[in-house]
Amino acid sequence: MTHSSITVLGAGSWGTALSLILAKKGHEVKLWMRNQEQYEEMNRQRENTKYLPGTQLHENIKLYVDIEKAVKGTDVVLLTISSQAVRGVLKNIRSIITREQIIVNAAKGLEANTLLRISQVVEEELGSHPFAVLSGPSHAEEVSKDIPTTVVVAAYERSVAECIQDLFMSSYFRVYTNPDVIGVELGGALKNVIAFGAGISDGLGYGDNAKAALMTRGIREIARLGSAMGGKLETFAGLTGIGDLIVTCTSMHSRNRRAGILTGQGKSLEETLSEIGMVVEGIKTTKAAFELAKQYQIEMPITEEIYSILYKDIPPRVAVSNLMSRDRTHEIEDIVDAEKINW
Amino acid sequence: MTHSSITVLGAGSWGTALSLILAKKGHEVKLWMRNQEQYEEMNRQRENTKYLPGTQLHENIKLYVDIEKAVKGTDVVLLTISSQAVRGVLKNIRSIITREQIIVNAAKGLEANTLLRISQVVEEELGSHPFAVLSGPSHAEEVSKDIPTTVVVAAYERSVAECIQDLFMSSYFRVYTNPDVIGVELGGALKNVIAFGAGISDGLGYGDNAKAALMTRGIREIARLGSAMGGKLETFAGLTGIGDLIVTCTSMHSRNRRAGILTGQGKSLEETLSEIGMVVEGIKTTKAAFELAKQYQIEMPITEEIYSILYKDIPPRVAVSNLMSRDRTHEIEDIVDAEKINW
Repeated sequence: MTHSSITVLGAGSWGTALSLILAKKGHEVKLWMRNQEQYEEMNRQRENTKYLPGTQLHENIKLYVDIEKAVKGTDVVLLTISSQAVRGVLKNIRSIITREQIIVNAAKGLEANTLLRISQVVEEELGSHPFAVLSGPSHAEEVSKDIPTTVVVAAYERSVAECIQDLFMSSYFRVYTNPDVIGVELGGALKNVIAFGAGISDGLGYGDNAKAALMTRGIREIARLGSAMGGKLETFAGLTGIGDLIVTCTSMHSRNRRAGILTGQGKSLEETLSEIGMVVEGIKTTKAAFELAKQYQIEMPITEEIYSILYKDIPPRVAVSNLMSRDRTHEIEDIVDAEKINW
Repeated sequence: MTHSSITVLGAGSWGTALSLILAKKGHEVKLWMRNQEQYEEMNRQRENTKYLPGTQLHENIKLYVDIEKAVKGTDVVLLTISSQAVRGVLKNIRSIITREQIIVNAAKGLEANTLLRISQVVEEELGSHPFAVLSGPSHAEEVSKDIPTTVVVAAYERSVAECIQDLFMSSYFRVYTNPDVIGVELGGALKNVIAFGAGISDGLGYGDNAKAALMTRGIREIARLGSAMGGKLETFAGLTGIGDLIVTCTSMHSRNRRAGILTGQGKSLEETLSEIGMVVEGIKTTKAAFELAKQYQIEMPITEEIYSILYKDIPPRVAVSNLMSRDRTHEIEDIVDAEKINW
């Protein structure tokens, strides 16, 4: 394939790791960051010492603080910035970006105050624009060490998805395509609620049985909400649903899980937040998921109990007991409709 | 509810843990084991020192070596013995057991030489007999410590499933019902192939991304085979499918995973088996799954590579490279048929 030029907006661990994949494949990467100090440090060291230490920046990666210069004339603009910052950045590049530049979002989350997915934010700010989302079980640290990883690219247009698949695919980074943009976006955002819950379970001193149940039943209720919102059930059973949830719930890297552990150990929301000292996406997303569940009238017992722990001061042990003592039910009656069950 | 009497055949860790749940609920448990020495030791210590040390046997548990006495007159006969031993045990109780005694299988596996599910073995030996299967993410050690756990009971008759649900359900042991006997049996048996593969991945030094991908794509190919064999896709996305797989792949308790680690580190099949020193179910099941895939003409790339490592001396690293470099594909095209994808 021919080589392309890609703008990467955001030089966190994920933006840097994705830049490395592209650069090693021979593409030209323009990696933009907002912070002048980080820019100077990275230019001097040729390493992202703050967010992805230990990996040298490839020579095909050029660094930028001027967003206009970074965006102008490339083939693809990759977003790896926080979901809450996307709208502001899009406003800044609205007059520079052209319809020929595909936007790919690789960060996970919803816009908190509007409950919008990132593809919707892009549409509000730029109108109809070629768009793809890249998601899946992918710790940046492992990707930067060429350890085998699989992800999914979803787009409404097949040609867009396959173009981005070609762009990234390599011997250690396998890319699948999926037409379900909504399902991929929601899976990546909502899994943090369950990751936070998995941390609570660990913090309570529960075991692998409880955590596996939480993950399995958790993705099921996310799938219920997600399909009501237009996503496909199959997507939530895939790499960007249960796959990503598994990685997040079993890793100590996850801030959401670590925050849950503190909550499970009895810390208040304030104490947890001050101890983590950073934004905990799952706490915001729990509120968003709770509101969406009400709006779409979906039963989400796990999300509701996590919400009660966070916002209604219900002790974690009581919340678990509420979940365990719900009416006895069938496992799949909410998914398979009654006709299909031969009981 | 009224109290019942239950025969438990097999006093391994799982048989003992399930006996404890039942006994604590006030049921009478007749726990049978084949081994005279184990029987005497357990009677003396009132503890299963070999398979579930640290937990006292409840007073409602009576021990038996005489299988006739253990089976006669109870309401339920619970099987927790190895899949390969079931047929022989059924032959021994054929003339004692009555149609009023529900058989519940709680062990996981296929009969290796016939590739039959345990419900099929029961039917061959006893004819039509009320049957249920109990499965899910459930380390016995955690269950015996009253740590929250969820499982599924599947039966062809709803009343049978709900009766067994009532029998076991407690504040720390939540039981869901499911009509899909085939799916529940196959999920429990086939997951050991993927658990063995997860061990190989760990043994090669790969990370969380690779393992999550293996689990997600692995359950998908199991679901493909399982649905061709009559199971429901939804079951494989549930507690007895991905849920059980998660527990098995992330736990150091799993023999299948430990055997995979040795294989991934370059040990031969013989070396691996002699180091583990016990039956490794996943190795036998890999062969069974490979044969079933051929028989049902299902594409199972992960199973095929694990088979090649075990039986064709393909180096694990080459097998992984084969998986990563397959043709670029869509994520869900094998499940959603073409009409439903709006591409």
